[in-house]
Amino acid sequence: MLDLWYWPSIPGRGEFVRLALEAAEVPYRDRARDEGVEALVADMKPRHGIKPFAPPYITCEVEGREVTIAQVGHILTWLADAHGFGASDLPKDLELIMLQLTVSDVVAEVHAVHHPVGVSAYYEDQKDAALVAAKHFREERIPKFLGYFEDALSAIDGPFVLGAKWSHVDTSLFQLVEGLRFMFPKRMAAVEADFPKLIACHDAVAALPGIKAYRASDRCIPFNQDGIFRHYPELDAA
Amino acid sequence: MLDLWYWPSIPGRGEFVRLALEAAEVPYRDRARDEGVEALVADMKPRHGIKPFAPPYITCEVEGREVTIAQVGHILTWLADAHGFGASDLPKDLELIMLQLTVSDVVAEVHAVHHPVGVSAYYEDQKDAALVAAKHFREERIPKFLGYFEDALSAIDGPFVLGAKWSHVDTSLFQLVEGLRFMFPKRMAAVEADFPKLIACHDAVAALPGIKAYRASDRCIPFNQDGIFRHYPELDAA
Repeated sequence: MLDLWYWPSIPGRGEFVRLALEAAEVPYRDRARDEGVEALVADMKPRHGIKPFAPPYITCEVEGREVTIAQVGHILTWLADAHGFGASDLPKDLELIMLQLTVSDVVAEVHAVHHPVGVSAYYEDQKDAALVAAKHFREERIPKFLGYFEDALSAIDGPFVLGAKWSHVDTSLFQLVEGLRFMFPKRMAAVEADFPKLIACHDAVAALPGIKAYRASDRCIPFNQDGIFRHYPELDAA
Repeated sequence: MLDLWYWPSIPGRGEFVRLALEAAEVPYRDRARDEGVEALVADMKPRHGIKPFAPPYITCEVEGREVTIAQVGHILTWLADAHGFGASDLPKDLELIMLQLTVSDVVAEVHAVHHPVGVSAYYEDQKDAALVAAKHFREERIPKFLGYFEDALSAIDGPFVLGAKWSHVDTSLFQLVEGLRFMFPKRMAAVEADFPKLIACHDAVAALPGIKAYRASDRCIPFNQDGIFRHYPELDAA
């Protein structure tokens, strides 16, 4: 059985994994959602040696051995290979990895917008720096990153990066657009028209049967102020 | 022929790729070092569709097709597979990827220490935030990250993550220690004794014939104030 381990109260980085599994309609157990955060803490605590630096991670069987895989891009690449939602063509799969790791870079920068000086400090104690960081992110990084993915989608007739077939890169781009809309509604409203292929990809992911069913279920956690994408109105502007 | 493309004036993220190639004594062309930064700019400019977000990237032939691979962890995983410096055992190789991507996370956080609010702004204009970010990084993140890698190395008789055989994770840990020593000499002097296996791994990498030859050559660029690891004395403390 495939087990996903992630903080149960936020979409966060775990959501990128959940969305691909839900789109592929792959059965999995979302352990901390089912058993509580204590189960996650208890699962992490005895781990020594080579282990996840942080959730999310999955545990599954590989060549007869129980393995633990952390890092979103790594988890998704593995799942795509195991469950057939990658390209099944090595040069194209190498491209998907490159794109997926760039999504991870964006996600890290998004978190750093509201926590620019320290991940363990309160937002309120780093708000002045966050105001400056948010301005840079809105004005420079959003167009640069979204333009990068728009360009990737322009390489082929869409709606997806691989064309007619969705991959984890598309479900991740969906979540990136959703998250940025939640965090920066004014900015996204002002710039989205510049990225028509990205928005078309987002919309095509939203229409996948597995994604529709998931988003209508209570398995899907709404964005909130504890996750990666947070809506602080003072950090947004057109 | 294997081509590496990276900014020619800094070790930066390119150094993690160079070190693995040099340790493995794999022939490669460091194109912008050989032909100047203009060659790198000219190589990036016409690229459209799915392309690197930023250097470093490599170009090589995969299944008869010319491919471009960006993202340090991705490049190194590919090279390890192609040139035999990975584990050659799938569950172990999955662990190496997890560790390598965590190295990339550390490197991103290191850069954010001196550029907490905007990658495009000058250090001098974000120095106040950098002072706070550096304190958090020194006191919380250095012990947490180095302790994580120490634990990974404790899983096996070393000196390397795989035991007697070096991998790209080890050459990357070498560079991480080197970089942190350059950036935070006081802090590293104060904490290094807590991470004996990590330092032993660093020293074992330094003793590899390919690494010794490389570091004695003019191919190896010293750390400087334009790279990822920068020495601002005001950001360091024991």
